[in-house]
Amino acid sequence: MPRLRIALAQTNSCVGDITGNADLIAQWSRRAADAGADLVAFPEMALTGYPVEDLALRESFVDASLAALESTASRLATDGLGGLPVVVGYLDREPGAVPRVGRPAGAPQDAVAVLYGGRVAVRSAKHHLPNYGVFDEFRYFVPGDRLPVLRLRGVDIAVAVCEDLWQEGGPVAVARQVGAGLLLTVNASPYERDKDDVRLELCARRAVEAGAALAYVNMVGGQDELVFDGDSLVVDAAGKLLARGPQFTEDLLVTDVELPEAAAEPPGPGPYDAADGTRIRVEHVVLSQDPAPERAPLPARIAEPMESAAEIYAALVTGTRDYVRKNGFRSVILNLSGGIDSALVATIASDAVGPERVYTLLLPSRYSSDHSVQDAEELVKRQGLHAQLIPIADIVGAFEDRIDIDGLAAENLQARIRGMLVMSLSNQHGHLVLTTGNKSELATGYSTLYGDSAGGFAPIKDVPKTVVWELSRWRNAQAEARGEVPPIPENSITKPPSAELRPGQVDTDSLPAYDILDALLHDYVERDLGRDALVAAGHDPALVDRVIRLVDRAEYKRRQYPPGPKVTGRNFGRDRRLPITSRWS
Amino acid sequence: MPRLRIALAQTNSCVGDITGNADLIAQWSRRAADAGADLVAFPEMALTGYPVEDLALRESFVDASLAALESTASRLATDGLGGLPVVVGYLDREPGAVPRVGRPAGAPQDAVAVLYGGRVAVRSAKHHLPNYGVFDEFRYFVPGDRLPVLRLRGVDIAVAVCEDLWQEGGPVAVARQVGAGLLLTVNASPYERDKDDVRLELCARRAVEAGAALAYVNMVGGQDELVFDGDSLVVDAAGKLLARGPQFTEDLLVTDVELPEAAAEPPGPGPYDAADGTRIRVEHVVLSQDPAPERAPLPARIAEPMESAAEIYAALVTGTRDYVRKNGFRSVILNLSGGIDSALVATIASDAVGPERVYTLLLPSRYSSDHSVQDAEELVKRQGLHAQLIPIADIVGAFEDRIDIDGLAAENLQARIRGMLVMSLSNQHGHLVLTTGNKSELATGYSTLYGDSAGGFAPIKDVPKTVVWELSRWRNAQAEARGEVPPIPENSITKPPSAELRPGQVDTDSLPAYDILDALLHDYVERDLGRDALVAAGHDPALVDRVIRLVDRAEYKRRQYPPGPKVTGRNFGRDRRLPITSRWS
Repeated sequence: MPRLRIALAQTNSCVGDITGNADLIAQWSRRAADAGADLVAFPEMALTGYPVEDLALRESFVDASLAALESTASRLATDGLGGLPVVVGYLDREPGAVPRVGRPAGAPQDAVAVLYGGRVAVRSAKHHLPNYGVFDEFRYFVPGDRLPVLRLRGVDIAVAVCEDLWQEGGPVAVARQVGAGLLLTVNASPYERDKDDVRLELCARRAVEAGAALAYVNMVGGQDELVFDGDSLVVDAAGKLLARGPQFTEDLLVTDVELPEAAAEPPGPGPYDAADGTRIRVEHVVLSQDPAPERAPLPARIAEPMESAAEIYAALVTGTRDYVRKNGFRSVILNLSGGIDSALVATIASDAVGPERVYTLLLPSRYSSDHSVQDAEELVKRQGLHAQLIPIADIVGAFEDRIDIDGLAAENLQARIRGMLVMSLSNQHGHLVLTTGNKSELATGYSTLYGDSAGGFAPIKDVPKTVVWELSRWRNAQAEARGEVPPIPENSITKPPSAELRPGQVDTDSLPAYDILDALLHDYVERDLGRDALVAAGHDPALVDRVIRLVDRAEYKRRQYPPGPKVTGRNFGRDRRLPITSRWS
Repeated sequence: MPRLRIALAQTNSCVGDITGNADLIAQWSRRAADAGADLVAFPEMALTGYPVEDLALRESFVDASLAALESTASRLATDGLGGLPVVVGYLDREPGAVPRVGRPAGAPQDAVAVLYGGRVAVRSAKHHLPNYGVFDEFRYFVPGDRLPVLRLRGVDIAVAVCEDLWQEGGPVAVARQVGAGLLLTVNASPYERDKDDVRLELCARRAVEAGAALAYVNMVGGQDELVFDGDSLVVDAAGKLLARGPQFTEDLLVTDVELPEAAAEPPGPGPYDAADGTRIRVEHVVLSQDPAPERAPLPARIAEPMESAAEIYAALVTGTRDYVRKNGFRSVILNLSGGIDSALVATIASDAVGPERVYTLLLPSRYSSDHSVQDAEELVKRQGLHAQLIPIADIVGAFEDRIDIDGLAAENLQARIRGMLVMSLSNQHGHLVLTTGNKSELATGYSTLYGDSAGGFAPIKDVPKTVVWELSRWRNAQAEARGEVPPIPENSITKPPSAELRPGQVDTDSLPAYDILDALLHDYVERDLGRDALVAAGHDPALVDRVIRLVDRAEYKRRQYPPGPKVTGRNFGRDRRLPITSRWS
């Protein structure tokens, strides 16, 4: 059987940075050529970044994508890479589309092209459009109805896009009918806890369905609330894993794959029944018929999947690092309370951008316990962060001289003064403010609007409190295993959580124990169970009623919360979308 | 020709308040019966409210809608209204749907039912699903493929839902094929400036296409960022306007319509070619064959469309009133600067909830001019609002004793202290905070995060500054025409706008004149023109570059802005969706 050397370039695009993304494509194509690859593939929308959201509806942006596609094809040839087929995702439009109510303006398409010999050899568009969870593709794209099949070194390679693998029928079904030897898919598949297992299983199943080996290249990096984790992979036609790239890091996964020689007679144009109620045309393009040269086979590279805590932590670090970098910041600032949430966020930030770029504020009030400042100072010392101590009692006093407040309003005032101090120093020095709230707080509204919820990016907004502890322990254990000082003081992990906004306050004054709360929130927020189903699942009925009310009433706060990376489930910013005004619970 | 008396009940549902909405249906059905109606129709999703967003994906919510539909049918019969066909929008699910990737969980449908004789006589679902602008219906619904046709007093009436009218083909095409005498559509069509003209033209055109008279009933009231304006209407088969309901107020539009007698032979079940690539089955249901009784014809009621300023103002008052009421608030609080934005917001609030429920804070700093407090006090006096004066210099001083800031950071500090004072008194007394920023500011980021942008609802966030002035002048002129004192002091309208955060500051230090800015923002934000097209449209190139940069960089602020009613174009919260992290402009 012919053996092809396939390179999967899991690169980190930035939305809208077409020039920078094109540079990435040129650089990694060079590496693929140097590695002797017969073909290199880049992720879905690698040229524009993903998701572009309403930019897809802007004519000038589609024009810019198309111009960059053509210029990248010429540039690759100029660079001596014209003989290397480069498969790249980009933004296109359906030719000759007539404007019509119900179709996205300009008829954009989530497209993939093959660049070869200085020109665009073939182009096609995603057939299945996801419009659930974090995806809104019916808003942005017109579906494609063609499947390109490349003949490369005598092997037929079908090319599809991301969701085409997840839904039944479509390109997978047609790939089988035309007898493709390899199904190549370009993806921008966001990270979610344990999704790597799902992907491998899916790819294996689709390979068997298509009767072809399958190569899957995925994007890497953070983009607002999404984090792409790479995890590119190759399976053979029986679904056996041949190669797997690392998670959360740019990489070129180069794999030798034995593939069947194509039939002498190329497949006809169809249309073929796509087994999903549609028909798909095939465009067969011959790039080269001559077999691949003899060469020593490469050893197979199969990256070990990360363990659960490592994976979540890496997603948080990646999301934070890219949000800082891609938005042009050079440093971050946050309020360190001595508690575990801000300790973990500081540690993530330190791992993301380096401790010398992390500025912390210690802002004790009259209710802060001694250990608050001590624990924060210990963390600062262990990690080598910048720190400034500013007692807030005088400022609280200045407000209380002017207005008459007590209870919750007085508690919120302290949190807001802290938020203002952080924002003021951010404005003065250009640091990005990191918000330290966790998912359990965000769900129940246990936070102060414009207080602890103020900021530009919220690294752990999708991390439940119980997982905050788990990640903190894991990160400390990692350090210990490497013979380093654990970055997080033990006391921040073990002490009872408290907002310290009134004397002797602890979280359990207002909330149940976090293991009980998080289990209930999982069933209500992630699984979307209603009241009766929650009770039937074994949750305490009174607690169910209370927590549902808390969660539903906090929607207005969540709408004003900064973005943060989706990691454990339905991210409140991106993929849980409920009305503020609602009488349903 | 038989004459039918059709009642269109444009009611104000609240999302999730199924019990309250069912009560509304019972009450207005009673009024329709009292008016001698042969049929009454309620808006799209009148039973659940619209839009329900992710509630559609919750099994328990769909169950509750279905249970309420059945119980409403019995209740109407118990109330002696079993003989009145009641057409009502609700949330259903596709029977027997199998879960599948790419389909909304539970296969919900945006449905319409006819209640008659104590039971549900027929049900069907929306065929065309909008997924553009403010709509996300591919996320929530499975399309319907049936058209119910009711035979009522010998006339055939086809029933469709909202978007079925806006897109080509579908129920309109099939209504013609089956020879329906009336096409009845239930709608939740949000307000947008001048949309009433578009609706009438659309209904007239579709009536001609369907070869049938057309009755259009629309929802009324505010729901988060949407405002429904009613504007129900009836046209004859030639497209001539027969009746039109008022805007922004609940109403029962009762109209006598001459309609052709149906053919003796009912239409077959089909399927019929819907001329949109799909086929639709028809369900014909005979409610009554006997002709309508002889009775004196009702005079036609055709409400005059409102003039543009009146219409926008009414949308803002409706949106504000319903946000306050439906979220359980009894009063509002805002910061009065003496400028025009806060003056207009206070006036809207006063018209929405009454001046006795409007609390204002006057918060001068060392940079506030004398006229700021004077103009604010004059407005308070004219409208009879609550007011409290709190100079903020001491509080500014308390911060400046602790941190070393200047320039923009120091300007923002003042705005944030004001935001905190408003929030503190909101927390203490339970007032909803109204945010006073306008669309021009929001677009360019000319505001302080957690300062003037703090709050729960932002009545004029979709109103450009030039329209703020227009509405203020219009509102004053209205008062004068009624012999009342104009609510807004003339000086607030005529003085140059200023944030007053440093000595002698005016908006034009940072922004171009608002007439120039708003024209450019219209082309960039509403029309989505790119840089070159903006220059070609006659905007100054340097200004284009500057404003594009301002708008794109302010996306992170807009994401944290409170909701506000969509009125003039693409609402930044609801229907302009761009990435924060982007290098494209």
